Amino acid sequence: MHKSFASRLGAEALGTFVLVFGGCGSAIFAAKVLDEGRLNMGIGFLGVALAFGLAVLVMAYAVGHISGGHFNPAVTIGAALAGRVEWKAVGPYILTQVIAASLAGWALFGIASGREGFDAVKSGFASNGYGDRSPEGYSLVAALLIEVILTAVFLYIILGSTDSRAPKGFAPIAIGLGLTLIHLVSIPVTNTSVNPARSLGVVWFAGPEAMGQVWLFIVAPIIGAAIAGVTYGILFPNTEDVVLER
Amino acid sequence: MHKSFASRLGAEALGTFVLVFGGCGSAIFAAKVLDEGRLNMGIGFLGVALAFGLAVLVMAYAVGHISGGHFNPAVTIGAALAGRVEWKAVGPYILTQVIAASLAGWALFGIASGREGFDAVKSGFASNGYGDRSPEGYSLVAALLIEVILTAVFLYIILGSTDSRAPKGFAPIAIGLGLTLIHLVSIPVTNTSVNPARSLGVVWFAGPEAMGQVWLFIVAPIIGAAIAGVTYGILFPNTEDVVLER
Amino acid sequence: MHKSFASRLGAEALGTFVLVFGGCGSAIFAAKVLDEGRLNMGIGFLGVALAFGLAVLVMAYAVGHISGGHFNPAVTIGAALAGRVEWKAVGPYILTQVIAASLAGWALFGIASGREGFDAVKSGFASNGYGDRSPEGYSLVAALLIEVILTAVFLYIILGSTDSRAPKGFAPIAIGLGLTLIHLVSIPVTNTSVNPARSLGVVWFAGPEAMGQVWLFIVAPIIGAAIAGVTYGILFPNTEDVVLER
Amino acid sequence: MHKSFASRLGAEALGTFVLVFGGCGSAIFAAKVLDEGRLNMGIGFLGVALAFGLAVLVMAYAVGHISGGHFNPAVTIGAALAGRVEWKAVGPYILTQVIAASLAGWALFGIASGREGFDAVKSGFASNGYGDRSPEGYSLVAALLIEVILTAVFLYIILGSTDSRAPKGFAPIAIGLGLTLIHLVSIPVTNTSVNPARSLGVVWFAGPEAMGQVWLFIVAPIIGAAIAGVTYGILFPNTEDVVLER
Repeated sequence: MHKSFASRLGAEALGTFVLVFGGCGSAIFAAKVLDEGRLNMGIGFLGVALAFGLAVLVMAYAVGHISGGHFNPAVTIGAALAGRVEWKAVGPYILTQVIAASLAGWALFGIASGREGFDAVKSGFASNGYGDRSPEGYSLVAALLIEVILTAVFLYIILGSTDSRAPKGFAPIAIGLGLTLIHLVSIPVTNTSVNPARSLGVVWFAGPEAMGQVWLFIVAPIIGAAIAGVTYGILFPNTEDVVLER
Repeated sequence: MHKSFASRLGAEALGTFVLVFGGCGSAIFAAKVLDEGRLNMGIGFLGVALAFGLAVLVMAYAVGHISGGHFNPAVTIGAALAGRVEWKAVGPYILTQVIAASLAGWALFGIASGREGFDAVKSGFASNGYGDRSPEGYSLVAALLIEVILTAVFLYIILGSTDSRAPKGFAPIAIGLGLTLIHLVSIPVTNTSVNPARSLGVVWFAGPEAMGQVWLFIVAPIIGAAIAGVTYGILFPNTEDVVLER
Repeated sequence: MHKSFASRLGAEALGTFVLVFGGCGSAIFAAKVLDEGRLNMGIGFLGVALAFGLAVLVMAYAVGHISGGHFNPAVTIGAALAGRVEWKAVGPYILTQVIAASLAGWALFGIASGREGFDAVKSGFASNGYGDRSPEGYSLVAALLIEVILTAVFLYIILGSTDSRAPKGFAPIAIGLGLTLIHLVSIPVTNTSVNPARSLGVVWFAGPEAMGQVWLFIVAPIIGAAIAGVTYGILFPNTEDVVLER
Repeated sequence: MHKSFASRLGAEALGTFVLVFGGCGSAIFAAKVLDEGRLNMGIGFLGVALAFGLAVLVMAYAVGHISGGHFNPAVTIGAALAGRVEWKAVGPYILTQVIAASLAGWALFGIASGREGFDAVKSGFASNGYGDRSPEGYSLVAALLIEVILTAVFLYIILGSTDSRAPKGFAPIAIGLGLTLIHLVSIPVTNTSVNPARSLGVVWFAGPEAMGQVWLFIVAPIIGAAIAGVTYGILFPNTEDVVLER
């Protein structure tokens, strides 16, 4: 039993590491790559959106069967509120996620430093932000709104696709591509968090201004996740008469 | 029974909200994002096409098992004509879809207003159009043709992939990526509707010229969906001798 | 029995129509869309590659259970050589595919003509070519080589993923994304055929020079498909002792 | 038995050929395609990342049921260390992979030579590199770090998604899209190897400087794969009490 719980934490650590290393790494290394002709060969916001989503998709298939595949403190809290994970696992899960995310941030910092002229603070280092730190200058209120709404949507996708009534085995596809969708909408607004661990994992390297805004990317995702976690069971009670034949 | 029908409407509301918030939101916030060097870091039409399709894919996995996952009045009408949903559900489904789409449009408007200099009418606000409001200047007839053809194709995909003979569990992938395909072809022609709720959801904020053209994006999708809904059963009668071993 | 065969031809017609309308349509309407700042908002070769692949993926889920989901004369011939379809179906299948592809080409021509200044011949109209009609100027021999190799690869993917030993239900994903892969490699070389029906469907509108080169895109795909159709069973005989536990 | 092993080698040969022909081919032919207006119509690093991943996804569905679908010496070694493939298969598998990769490189060289002005050495020919041969100038240490980390991640994805506890049939999706994720992060750093066969397959044509760096792309992937192969069973022991109900 103890060993089993260690495996679950190991799975959360591995998944969260890959989420931050893959998602934030693609933003740091590959979003913008100019060739000699000043063309962008890089992957842009579209590629970054895919990277975040694919990281969750692949790790949910790889280790989701061990831990449930949260990789995100807001997901863990929402899942607990919906009765999908036991409350006593919440603390260790979140601690593990934040540590693994920070390790990924540190590994990215090490690799990025292997390029001449790299400056983590100036580059933003894939940190989240609002106001003058929003990629397109969106206000604090706009940032708060979109992070709350999109994290709620993310939890509805997670709770719905892992519902006993949903097709079996497809949840990682729905959840991963759901995270891609979320990034396609909101990278220009906040650089997209919906995940406090992802925000914390890179903020240590992004300078004091980024650190001064990180509270929003802890608070807003948790509010959004809590809204969905509490309301999912009310909206979609799992009684036999709700099941429709398809 | 009553409760069950409320869940179905809740599922349609949630799915349609995500479709408009994700699809139109990606177009409004992320299609074009210029960095200092005047490079487009944004997701372009390709990213918008993915966003619309992924929204349907993920929400069909999340709540399709509750409501059938229409999120689109034309789909509801086509499904009714094909005998896949009861006629008395059609009215409430469509009303729910249009309200949820409009709520999503309103939320997008609120967030977009959090950026200085935002002008919904001038930006187009992801509305559909033909003639001088078509992204590439296609005529009314071209717009009508492509919306009718592509909505018919969309319904054939939906009816075929949810046919009892098709592989189980994969329909949301086929339907979602089918919507992506439809957008890859037709964003330059009409900004792509094939969904009256999607068109209505944002048109309230897009000015009188957009409002004056929205009729086409109600009429054409319904015609296309009706053609497919009526002909599917004739083309592909579900009798045992049609089934091929694979 | 007669009715069943009509359904199979209907499925081939519908699938091939969508393949050409979606794939070639995305190339004609959406590959290059300049905004005022001369940025390309269009989907580029990447979007076109996705469109072709997604068209096959979605139509294979929609009607593959009716007809086998060939949508391509080379596939039909390769499948017949591999014993996957009866020889007497080959003629009607191919005729249906070519007619449906040409109908799609005609519909695209009609819609494209709804934009001022459209010139099918000058635009290329998504036709295939080599030498001075290759997008990047590749020679006849290079074009022949890549079309033969990639059609053989396509048939190996089809025959392998629909093999009784492969996971059930996933073949349309493998086949569709395999076609995307093929386009990612070869659009710059020949504009990618691997499908005589796709080539014929648009060539009627693309002018005499395109017509003068279309033979290669009939011959090369058939050679490639035949190589794979004949060798698949030799390379991978389906005997019980070959099956590995996973 | 002998015949069965020949089929397995045939499957590895075919899969590795497609991986190099598709992945490196997309980089060589399609990453950068300038139209007259100096716009890049090509697929960029995002398209190349998709090509590598889709190649593995589709070939794992096509022939993974025959050979296990490694297509990569590092994967074969990691799988052997994890007890997923017998040690006596390792040598023949690796030899087959390197020969097939080199054949693909040779075919690409032949086709690329069909375009005037092609110079394999000057173009880089999709070879891997560090320092002044890294696409964005990353150091040897950065290259080593990222190749070790990402190959370890790749093996965790492979071992986890093919674990008896994971959903059946989805492993090729997880593995293929995992390879896409890996490329989204690391093309700018090393042009991405994580696969000694992929690196060797093209290096013969890329000149002496590329050849002088290829050792890193043999050593680093094998180290990464070995780390994951050895630790997977320790982190995630497959005992019944670890299995969680979902």
